[in-house]
Amino acid sequence: MNTIYVINGPNLNLLGKRQPHIYGHETLEDVKNACIQVGLDNGLDVTFMQSNAEAQIIDWIHDARENATGIVINPAAFTHTSVAILDALNTFDHPIIEVHISNVHKREPFRHHSYVSGVASGVIAGFGTQGYVFAVQRMAQLLAAAATDRAS
Amino acid sequence: MNTIYVINGPNLNLLGKRQPHIYGHETLEDVKNACIQVGLDNGLDVTFMQSNAEAQIIDWIHDARENATGIVINPAAFTHTSVAILDALNTFDHPIIEVHISNVHKREPFRHHSYVSGVASGVIAGFGTQGYVFAVQRMAQLLAAAATDRAS
Amino acid sequence: MNTIYVINGPNLNLLGKRQPHIYGHETLEDVKNACIQVGLDNGLDVTFMQSNAEAQIIDWIHDARENATGIVINPAAFTHTSVAILDALNTFDHPIIEVHISNVHKREPFRHHSYVSGVASGVIAGFGTQGYVFAVQRMAQLLAAAATDRAS
Amino acid sequence: MNTIYVINGPNLNLLGKRQPHIYGHETLEDVKNACIQVGLDNGLDVTFMQSNAEAQIIDWIHDARENATGIVINPAAFTHTSVAILDALNTFDHPIIEVHISNVHKREPFRHHSYVSGVASGVIAGFGTQGYVFAVQRMAQLLAAAATDRAS
Amino acid sequence: MNTIYVINGPNLNLLGKRQPHIYGHETLEDVKNACIQVGLDNGLDVTFMQSNAEAQIIDWIHDARENATGIVINPAAFTHTSVAILDALNTFDHPIIEVHISNVHKREPFRHHSYVSGVASGVIAGFGTQGYVFAVQRMAQLLAAAATDRAS
Amino acid sequence: MNTIYVINGPNLNLLGKRQPHIYGHETLEDVKNACIQVGLDNGLDVTFMQSNAEAQIIDWIHDARENATGIVINPAAFTHTSVAILDALNTFDHPIIEVHISNVHKREPFRHHSYVSGVASGVIAGFGTQGYVFAVQRMAQLLAAAATDRAS
Amino acid sequence: MNTIYVINGPNLNLLGKRQPHIYGHETLEDVKNACIQVGLDNGLDVTFMQSNAEAQIIDWIHDARENATGIVINPAAFTHTSVAILDALNTFDHPIIEVHISNVHKREPFRHHSYVSGVASGVIAGFGTQGYVFAVQRMAQLLAAAATDRAS
Amino acid sequence: MNTIYVINGPNLNLLGKRQPHIYGHETLEDVKNACIQVGLDNGLDVTFMQSNAEAQIIDWIHDARENATGIVINPAAFTHTSVAILDALNTFDHPIIEVHISNVHKREPFRHHSYVSGVASGVIAGFGTQGYVFAVQRMAQLLAAAATDRAS
Amino acid sequence: MNTIYVINGPNLNLLGKRQPHIYGHETLEDVKNACIQVGLDNGLDVTFMQSNAEAQIIDWIHDARENATGIVINPAAFTHTSVAILDALNTFDHPIIEVHISNVHKREPFRHHSYVSGVASGVIAGFGTQGYVFAVQRMAQLLAAAATDRAS
Amino acid sequence: MNTIYVINGPNLNLLGKRQPHIYGHETLEDVKNACIQVGLDNGLDVTFMQSNAEAQIIDWIHDARENATGIVINPAAFTHTSVAILDALNTFDHPIIEVHISNVHKREPFRHHSYVSGVASGVIAGFGTQGYVFAVQRMAQLLAAAATDRAS
Amino acid sequence: MNTIYVINGPNLNLLGKRQPHIYGHETLEDVKNACIQVGLDNGLDVTFMQSNAEAQIIDWIHDARENATGIVINPAAFTHTSVAILDALNTFDHPIIEVHISNVHKREPFRHHSYVSGVASGVIAGFGTQGYVFAVQRMAQLLAAAATDRAS
Amino acid sequence: MNTIYVINGPNLNLLGKRQPHIYGHETLEDVKNACIQVGLDNGLDVTFMQSNAEAQIIDWIHDARENATGIVINPAAFTHTSVAILDALNTFDHPIIEVHISNVHKREPFRHHSYVSGVASGVIAGFGTQGYVFAVQRMAQLLAAAATDRAS
Repeated sequence: MNTIYVINGPNLNLLGKRQPHIYGHETLEDVKNACIQVGLDNGLDVTFMQSNAEAQIIDWIHDARENATGIVINPAAFTHTSVAILDALNTFDHPIIEVHISNVHKREPFRHHSYVSGVASGVIAGFGTQGYVFAVQRMAQLLAAAATDRAS
Repeated sequence: MNTIYVINGPNLNLLGKRQPHIYGHETLEDVKNACIQVGLDNGLDVTFMQSNAEAQIIDWIHDARENATGIVINPAAFTHTSVAILDALNTFDHPIIEVHISNVHKREPFRHHSYVSGVASGVIAGFGTQGYVFAVQRMAQLLAAAATDRAS
Repeated sequence: MNTIYVINGPNLNLLGKRQPHIYGHETLEDVKNACIQVGLDNGLDVTFMQSNAEAQIIDWIHDARENATGIVINPAAFTHTSVAILDALNTFDHPIIEVHISNVHKREPFRHHSYVSGVASGVIAGFGTQGYVFAVQRMAQLLAAAATDRAS
Repeated sequence: MNTIYVINGPNLNLLGKRQPHIYGHETLEDVKNACIQVGLDNGLDVTFMQSNAEAQIIDWIHDARENATGIVINPAAFTHTSVAILDALNTFDHPIIEVHISNVHKREPFRHHSYVSGVASGVIAGFGTQGYVFAVQRMAQLLAAAATDRAS
Repeated sequence: MNTIYVINGPNLNLLGKRQPHIYGHETLEDVKNACIQVGLDNGLDVTFMQSNAEAQIIDWIHDARENATGIVINPAAFTHTSVAILDALNTFDHPIIEVHISNVHKREPFRHHSYVSGVASGVIAGFGTQGYVFAVQRMAQLLAAAATDRAS
Repeated sequence: MNTIYVINGPNLNLLGKRQPHIYGHETLEDVKNACIQVGLDNGLDVTFMQSNAEAQIIDWIHDARENATGIVINPAAFTHTSVAILDALNTFDHPIIEVHISNVHKREPFRHHSYVSGVASGVIAGFGTQGYVFAVQRMAQLLAAAATDRAS
Repeated sequence: MNTIYVINGPNLNLLGKRQPHIYGHETLEDVKNACIQVGLDNGLDVTFMQSNAEAQIIDWIHDARENATGIVINPAAFTHTSVAILDALNTFDHPIIEVHISNVHKREPFRHHSYVSGVASGVIAGFGTQGYVFAVQRMAQLLAAAATDRAS
Repeated sequence: MNTIYVINGPNLNLLGKRQPHIYGHETLEDVKNACIQVGLDNGLDVTFMQSNAEAQIIDWIHDARENATGIVINPAAFTHTSVAILDALNTFDHPIIEVHISNVHKREPFRHHSYVSGVASGVIAGFGTQGYVFAVQRMAQLLAAAATDRAS
Repeated sequence: MNTIYVINGPNLNLLGKRQPHIYGHETLEDVKNACIQVGLDNGLDVTFMQSNAEAQIIDWIHDARENATGIVINPAAFTHTSVAILDALNTFDHPIIEVHISNVHKREPFRHHSYVSGVASGVIAGFGTQGYVFAVQRMAQLLAAAATDRAS
Repeated sequence: MNTIYVINGPNLNLLGKRQPHIYGHETLEDVKNACIQVGLDNGLDVTFMQSNAEAQIIDWIHDARENATGIVINPAAFTHTSVAILDALNTFDHPIIEVHISNVHKREPFRHHSYVSGVASGVIAGFGTQGYVFAVQRMAQLLAAAATDRAS
Repeated sequence: MNTIYVINGPNLNLLGKRQPHIYGHETLEDVKNACIQVGLDNGLDVTFMQSNAEAQIIDWIHDARENATGIVINPAAFTHTSVAILDALNTFDHPIIEVHISNVHKREPFRHHSYVSGVASGVIAGFGTQGYVFAVQRMAQLLAAAATDRAS
Repeated sequence: MNTIYVINGPNLNLLGKRQPHIYGHETLEDVKNACIQVGLDNGLDVTFMQSNAEAQIIDWIHDARENATGIVINPAAFTHTSVAILDALNTFDHPIIEVHISNVHKREPFRHHSYVSGVASGVIAGFGTQGYVFAVQRMAQLLAAAATDRAS
């Protein structure tokens, strides 16, 4: 069974505990469970992690090079500032999907630019925590299509 | 049963017939059928339309004010240039979701700005035609949540 | 009797039916009647039209070259995006007055630039629908002054 | 009877004496008389003043806080440079209308930005001295509407 | 015999009837006849069209995918504003040549950027209506060279 | 017989010997012969020159003030950097036409600005070496028209 | 005893009488008394002034060259627009401290730039009227340190 | 007794040991002691910390959500680069005060923008280490005022 | 004998008393005497004035419309900020020369733009107080040339 | 024997294992050995380290203040984003040399700006891993020259 | 006797022969004679040269390092484009004065920036050919003052 | 034996004779000798040249197409301004290395952009004249690697 990493950036540990008008009431634990479940439904083993430290996220991406065939990432604030995460993702040869819980495109201008989008196959924003579910489903489809390609 | 409009902008009539490395092989007819089906699965009556004319799209949005409770829109090239469509969407009181088949965030800089994002609850890009399916599913959830809110 | 065209751009057909905190409660029909009346009071035959289509507005401006001696125009969203309407107005040899119902100068930055202002003799914004009445009155004065000039 | 202030900025004392191709032949005295007359016709007591000094204009605006229920202002050059006048107008709780004799929107780029527009309910430019008359008429309508609001 | 489309954008229907100091005295009918003649001289069947509607131009470009082996286009005002026409041209696999009657490079700054240039093989501006003749001649040469390439 | 100068800027001496995917296989000698021939066909005496030195090009333009009635110029890299050539061309009272072999409008951004376009009557780019032929033909027409004007 | 000037710019005469959500309820008289008292407590003779006139403020700064050993200044709107006050402060050889009652750094972008900051030793913003007290205390410390320096 | 956190960003551990012409001779230990003392004087329990790691600072801010009623923060270099710290502070419901030892407003342009200012009630810069003392005093006043508000 | 005004802007009253490394040791009184003398030598009656108040300078320019045939102006800080002085100078029909004692072109970027240069026939900067002498000499030559023109 | 630190930023632990077309096939271990060897050849004791964590790099720079007389740094992605590393380097009194394996000057625009260059004596980019060797050699020369200076 | 170089840039050889509305009727020979004469009157030996070649001008500046104590330079078009001339002037230890015949500050924006101003002590523009005379006079004064400084 | 060209741009003939705090004390002759020696040590025949003329440098690059297998270039001021040199280098099929003696990245902003970097394999700046030695050594390695590639 394919393993994918679902990586979450800074402050997402507070999900459901702060600014519910922006981020809703579900906690990151809820999101984790939903991702694992939808992963199982689609034949994917989901490893779910969160960190406030850029270096930890880089290490996990390096780790994914060995242990995963896809990355779903919500880089949170690092979306807009981290070239280092971009460089780490650039070393990853499998699909990457970018998730944002809120619609960053209608928030402050500095949230409109993403270093990650340039290496992601897709971006989903403003779908709340449901965005994670769709991202995992999309990843399943991309990996299935890639498997089909290799088989043919 | 709630009705939602799925509105498509210019050149999407050629979907599946041009630049498959960007847009894939599915036709707009395929997308239409998928949207109607996923709509039915989620209790939504999907009306699906496409036009190369900005005025036609504005008229459909005006029409939606009377006849629909949600709009899924892929404004295509008008995303980046049409204040008139933004103004039309501003008159619509129900949820709006923006879809792009390709990941516009990694194409030319002029494709990074969307007039529509400012009024959309969510944006999905680079999920191929599957993005439409997720958008309709999201719309179902938003309308269900709104119904729950009204009921409580 | 001089004929003038009062041309209205996209979404103005919804006037009075949407966002009353911005646009007030009068409908476009009300504005039309007011314009015709103030036209009559000032010896002007007012032809009043609205379209959501840029091409239609261009055609009306071309038409005005034969049939009108002044244009009052509320280009709405096209104010900020249409070089084509600017080019059409550039072919018109009589006075042009630009009207905006809301004070565009205090809304989003992209509403601060007008392609039309460069060829208009005057601009009135934020006077509500009364702005049309003043525009027609101003047109009457400009045409009277032009007639006086020709006579002398 | 409501009192309104009509405040004029620098160099307008020369009106009618300079650059008639831009500003016409009427003097500021003519404009004053026209404003007073149209004020009387609309039940408004017009106090008309002009100064080349920013501090004087600020003082008049402070004064208006006690003695006027509306301000019509042609800030002239201060339109583009005076945050102090903006701050003074920000302390005024009644309607403000901005007038420019010429169409500033088609002159040098530095004339396209107005600090005052952000606090004005309306802006009229390029209507010659007639713009003052319309501004006073508009003020009468706004004050009448406000009175109606209070009465209801 | 190869067919090429010569497509003209908004306001060009007025050619020869307006601003002759910029556009000269020849009408669009004159240009059409010249293009057809030079087409015949070079073994090309010229289909000549003009529209003020962006959607019509997009439809013609879609049509050209089936029926033409080259497009000469004077997008007029749409040059500077239409991503939709760019996207349509992106679906066309044969040569595209961009024509402007006046030298847009020395007019207002907003006329210096062309969305179309990015997909055109060549651009000719300021050659008056003679630019069309040269564009058709160039197209003949490009198609001849392509035929030679395919033959070898 | 009128004399015109065809002036070529830096690196064009290598034409046909470098980057054929951009500049084709014809040499500058080929272009020279073509220009002279088409000049003869149109009653023009063509003087053809090339230099890598800005000062030499300035001197030739000064020389043209005495000895030529038209300049066709491909300033190559100097297009984007030389105010001195612009100033020299500003002293020339006859028509100027600007030629670029490749379509500079779709290359690096710094190639999109031309100091020369501001004084050229026309610009042709991306027509390969055929652009020179069209430029000479256009010059013949402009000089003929000017002669007609003087005669009338 | 050292004398310091506390200079206040335009509209601050209205302090406590306008926009209390931004500026609080204390009047400028209250601030003056607090400054004098804290000055006394720290061995400083505080001269407190306010003007809406830029020229008056410049004159006071010139005056301070003779009569004061420190300037605390709240330039209000002139912060963002007055090079003349900057030039005056440049002639002053003792410490300068800049005070803003509100946090200008989170208001409109044009309030983010201060001409005065470049010559101030410190800036305090958003501390309400208490910012004045701290500024006077800081000035006392700076002057004491300078005295110590001179003594050593 | 209310607890407040005083959080210090990268390189401040070297305070007093480097660049004394910019930062003075006091060490961070000195500042800590001063803050604790002035806290005690004002009825506040001051917890003082410093880290070179962005993640540590984020964790402390999260911690403050449970354990503190105010944050005084000198984000040092992170002021200008850390959206993650901004997002963490956005989750904190009590007052925030921003301190800079040097006057950042007169140093390199990249030091003029602060992500933190947008959520701070006040900013103090260039007051040396005394700025901390004033910040703690201000915090005491803000908390006292808030307590008064709740009591009334 | 022709009268010319030599007008000096803010802070120039301190000339010779401040920043001698920038402005030298001569006082404004010295400059005045030098101007009057060189005026006499060249048949010009020099009226010399200085003010820190923009309104005063505007009034003097208005005055010059009646009483002077040339203006030499050192607007000092107002050079960069005063549209009002530009507008006043625009009403003056005789030559204007702009003087700066220091070389503003090598100081801070905000000193590189001058509103006055657009209406001045010449600008002299960095010639110290000698710049005034040259400006008066130049004015004499311009007025002599104008007299010659009128005579012929 | 002088000690120098060679500090490597994020993702360089993957050197030789990713994107060999950009970074080549040598591993960081290879680079470390080469640096130590060339250090020995030049009388320098090389301490070589790498981290993905900004805070670790800051700590090492602080450490270098005590234990090293030179820093060679390849900040990798932090080059473009870390003010904190710049601030740390600002506290270091010995030479700093900046190394990039690829030629950052021809990659994405955001890689063209380096916060570190402002404090480095030299920068070498695009020399592959050989750049490290040259940097160490250069450091040896700089330290020798400094020793000579001190001796004289 | 001190020698100074008066160096003229491209196209100035045509002075008096082109665009007299901008540059007047005097030839460069006239200017040369005037400069030599005013030099003699002020004890300066003037060497006057002109070239259209940047390299020649650089060589002359290098030459001036040995043979001159001042440079008056009208770099013409090179003002705005030549870093090489700036670098050459940077090697020159005596005064430099920049002259422009026309008022470059009111011409095209690209003429508003001068690389030379940064190293010139003074700039004179728009004084026609008289600007050269003043520049030589100013040079005489600067050299006299420097001599006085050395003597004291 | 491979030949490489070491080309030096304007003002470098003065090396060692000007601004030693920036460029050091070695002369260009010293650099030439060092380059030739290190070339010999590495089996390369070094041809060393310098010119102040852009055209000469272009000619040398054209010459290198026939006679050299590598170019080391210090374009000096032309780095920032010469598209013509970029175009010449674009015609060269062997490695190019860019050298700057000073660290251009910390000098004026206009020195931060290099037209040459886009075609250079590597850039070395701020290594003093030692940078040339490293550049020649690097060139030797690149040519050796290329020879190995061809051999395999």
